[in-house]
Parts: sequence; C-alpha cells; structure tokens
Amino acid sequence: MSLIVVGSVAYDGVETPHGKVDRMLGGAATYIALAASYFTPSRIVAVVGDDFDQADIDLLASRQIDLSGLERVAGGKTFFWAGVYSDDMNDRTTLRTDLNVFADFNPKLPASYRTEPYLFLGNIQPALQRSVRHQMNGVKLTGGDTMNYWIRDFRSELLETLKEWDFLLINDSEARMLSGEYNLRAAAARIQAMGPRTLVIKRGEYGALLFHGGKHFMAPGYLLESVFDPTGAGDSFAGGFIGYLAGRGLDLNEGPIEFAELRKAVIYGSVMGSFCCERYGVERFRTLTRQEIDARYTEFKDCTDF
Amino acid sequence: MSLIVVGSVAYDGVETPHGKVDRMLGGAATYIALAASYFTPSRIVAVVGDDFDQADIDLLASRQIDLSGLERVAGGKTFFWAGVYSDDMNDRTTLRTDLNVFADFNPKLPASYRTEPYLFLGNIQPALQRSVRHQMNGVKLTGGDTMNYWIRDFRSELLETLKEWDFLLINDSEARMLSGEYNLRAAAARIQAMGPRTLVIKRGEYGALLFHGGKHFMAPGYLLESVFDPTGAGDSFAGGFIGYLAGRGLDLNEGPIEFAELRKAVIYGSVMGSFCCERYGVERFRTLTRQEIDARYTEFKDCTDF
Repeated sequence: MSLIVVGSVAYDGVETPHGKVDRMLGGAATYIALAASYFTPSRIVAVVGDDFDQADIDLLASRQIDLSGLERVAGGKTFFWAGVYSDDMNDRTTLRTDLNVFADFNPKLPASYRTEPYLFLGNIQPALQRSVRHQMNGVKLTGGDTMNYWIRDFRSELLETLKEWDFLLINDSEARMLSGEYNLRAAAARIQAMGPRTLVIKRGEYGALLFHGGKHFMAPGYLLESVFDPTGAGDSFAGGFIGYLAGRGLDLNEGPIEFAELRKAVIYGSVMGSFCCERYGVERFRTLTRQEIDARYTEFKDCTDF
Repeated sequence: MSLIVVGSVAYDGVETPHGKVDRMLGGAATYIALAASYFTPSRIVAVVGDDFDQADIDLLASRQIDLSGLERVAGGKTFFWAGVYSDDMNDRTTLRTDLNVFADFNPKLPASYRTEPYLFLGNIQPALQRSVRHQMNGVKLTGGDTMNYWIRDFRSELLETLKEWDFLLINDSEARMLSGEYNLRAAAARIQAMGPRTLVIKRGEYGALLFHGGKHFMAPGYLLESVFDPTGAGDSFAGGFIGYLAGRGLDLNEGPIEFAELRKAVIYGSVMGSFCCERYGVERFRTLTRQEIDARYTEFKDCTDF
C-alpha cells in the first residue's frame, strides 16, 4: 500500500550563510517523497525537462521511489528556483523562479497509481489538486498543502478542493490568511469547518500544532546544533507526517484516525524536517537511515517529556 | 521557607487591540511574586512612591505576599511605564518610561528576609542584584533575569553577577546577545559557562527551552483561545518557575536539582504566563486558584504527550 505524491520536482540554487550551491535537486514532491520513503513505498507524479540528471533519478530510485508518474518533456527545462537566506536563515529572498515545464503541469496518474490508498497533494493550483483526487479510485486518506498565492487569488477554487481533503498542512501565516483569524485555535476551527478534519500548522523552528476534531497537540521544534540549509524542511516534515500514517496502513473506512497516531506522525514530521536542515538540499537523505530517524524520535521524546 | 523577589513594583499604562488601561498595577516583582505565591510564601523587595494605592497593597497582601521589604518614598512617585501593542500583540512600543523613585532604588533586605533560602533577582542593574545576593545568608538557590541594556552596556558587571547565580531566565534575543551565538544550543553552552548551571530561554508564545548541565528540554507555548494582554507574561513565567522550585523545598546543598523538577518548573512557568495573558495586567490573579493552575498543567501534559 503506497503513497502518491504530486508536486514539483525542480532544481534549486541556494545561498545560506554557510555557502552557495548553484544547482541542486529540489522541489516539494522530491522532499516529500524522499522523507516518506523511510516509512512507506512512495510514487511521484511530477514533470521535468530533458535536462533532468540521471544522477537525480538514481537518488530517488535508491529510495525505491516509483517514478512511473514522472513525466519528461522533450526539449523542456526543469522548474528552477533560486533564493538567498538571511543571516539567521529565518527569511529568504527569491532571486529567480523559472517555472519552465512546470507552468503546463497537468498531472495524469499512471493506471498503476490510481488504486493506491494514500494521496499527498503538494502545493500546485487547487484545480489540479482536485483533478488528481478525482483520478484516484478508493483513496483512503487525502491531504496536502497550499500557499498564500492560491489562498488569496484562487480562494473559491481552493475551498472546493479542501472540501474533499482529510488533512491539510500549512504554516501559521497561511492558516491566518485562509481563516481570517489571528488566534490559531480560532483559525483552526474555521479551517476544519472547510473540510479537513485534521490540520497541521507548521511553525518552522518553533515546531507544529496539530488539530484533530475538537482536540489539539502542541509540538516544539527539534533543537538542532546547527542549521545548514532550511530548504525543503517543511516538505520533509510533510513527508514524515504522511509517510508515517501511510506506513501504519491507516484506513479511514475502519473508523477515524486515532489522535495518538497523528501525534506520532507530527513528531516524525519534525524529525524529518530537522534532518533535512543538516545539509544542503536533499544531501542528508543520501546517508540517512531509519535507525537514525527512530533514535531522534526517542531523543525528541526524552527532550519533551515532563 | 520563602522566596525573596527583588525588582520593580510599578504602574503601567497599556493599550492592546482589546482596549486601553491608563494606569494599573505592574512591575516585574509584582508579577513574579503574584505568580510564585501560588506555590510558596513570597516576599517583595521594591520601592514605590507615596502615590501607591492601598488597593494594590491589599491585592498583594491577599496573596500573603510579605511587603516588609517594600520601601515607600515620601513625596516620591512610583515607576510608571506606558506602551502600546501591535495588532498581533507580538510587538510593543514604549510610549513613556518615568523611573521616578525606581531611579534611586538601592535594595536593602529586612533582617527577616536574609536567611530565606530562595532568591529571585528581577531585571535591575547587575551591581544591585549582586549586592542583594551578598546580603543573603545561606541562600540555597539564586537566579534571575536581565535585559539587553545591561548585556550591552554593563557587560563586565553583569558577568561578575552571573558567576554567583544558579539559574538565569532570559528571552532568545537576550541569549543571543549575551552569548554572541545565534544557535540556541551553542548560546546556552556559552551562557552556562558564565555561571548559571540552569538556563531557561523564554520564547513568548512559542514556549521555552531549558538547559541544565549537558541536557535540554523543549516546551511548546500553551495555546490560548485568546490573548488579552501579554504584559507581565514573562515575569509570571519566572514566578511560576522559581515558585514551583521553592515550594518543593529544593536544597542544592543536598545535591543538584533533579532535571525532572526543573522540567515541571518550566511547565508551571508556562501555565502562569498563559493565565496572565487572559486579562489586563494582574487582573487574572484576583480570581485564579491553585486548582485552575493544576488543571491547566494537566491539560498541558495532555496536549504535549506522544
């Protein structure tokens, strides 16, 4: 039983106080699938140009990620983003966004994907997210994320899309924009009324909040000894979260997800986000093992229990 | 066995998005002693003018706070601060600071205070904090807080003072300024080397970090349904923290403080800070009960366990 991940596969140029990388593998679907792959088989739906490197295919394949849904456009170029981080790495400025083949991305699921039970819809136009949801046949758990652009300029389309989601992962400013409420408990209640019974509000280094039905859970951020590059941390969080749930084989037809499982999923999300920050881009996933993940989960528990 | 609290007792004028109060009881020592009084007998060392209201004396006395150390300067005016909060209440602008009698505050401990075991030194000039420490006879646990002004302009005096402290409570920007390190684990290690074996870094709505010896503990912020007025929340945190430790009768002569006790103290600190935000100024302490505090502690545990 595997997880379908839809979103961008890209190249990034990143500058942090630690140095500069002109071109490295990136994209939301890349990070989500890599992080999720430690918990459950993952399958990507994305588009790249014919400039996409075999070495990057090999990295994804080394994590047993199914690439049947990775469309390659002949003569096209892969989505490229470049940005520079502030000294404290809490802010970043986009230097360049070349959508390239991603501008015409119209995700079509391979037949082999359609009966899988778990679906994560990365940040793309809400109508496309909705179209993918409708291509699935018997999906058990659907959710994803979105961003300020869709919240502001595609609101009704986004609301139509969210109606069909079981969970939503967004950051605090997006939650405030989507709900019109500053207080996050009030914001969460409004967003849950839009459809997703489960809401995760990501707060970067400050951790995450989980809302599920009428309950909530507060997780602090894992305290890293040094943050090397925060690129992809939020998507790695998402991958850890949905990967854990999918790996547990949760079936909403057999009853609601247990809150305890969702809490664990949030912590695994934090753990995956924290590992991501330890190296540039996806580098940490080249060596990361499930043993390291479980050790950090245990350490997280030791550092938060009282 | 009681707690000595040294610091400001003041009047505040505060404007939040919820309204405006021209003059209300405030000051760090006020909040610290009120919050601590739920856990341990508390005694204030502070100075006020003869404009200080009997109603405010009565409020402090109603919490059994010893006011023998509250000096009243005839013809003097009480410290007054006024500020306005931003719409999200995460920033505030000071409109007025009239030090008045606080400008010449030179704390002298009544004889009845000097043999008490617990001492919290609120944010005053480091040399004065040091002088108070030296007036104590057989103190078991000493600590306090400080601020950017002393860190920047009275650094050597502050370092002399910190040498004798068992714990320090500061916020994240102060920790960074004091240590010269941006990463908070690195900052904590440097600050601990200055003297305080125990360091609490307060992060406002995002919770707090506790460092003790080589270990650390991460606590998320309590998620309030609505924040009415954040004035005094950090000092109420401090009062809950030291109040809990004092109430447990911890004695450093009998061995180091257990890390488990310090974790609980941090959570009680968060709980007291959260209550403080629910009403203007000290209002919430008029009705707050120990039962409510313990219920919120339990709720905090329910909302963070995984």
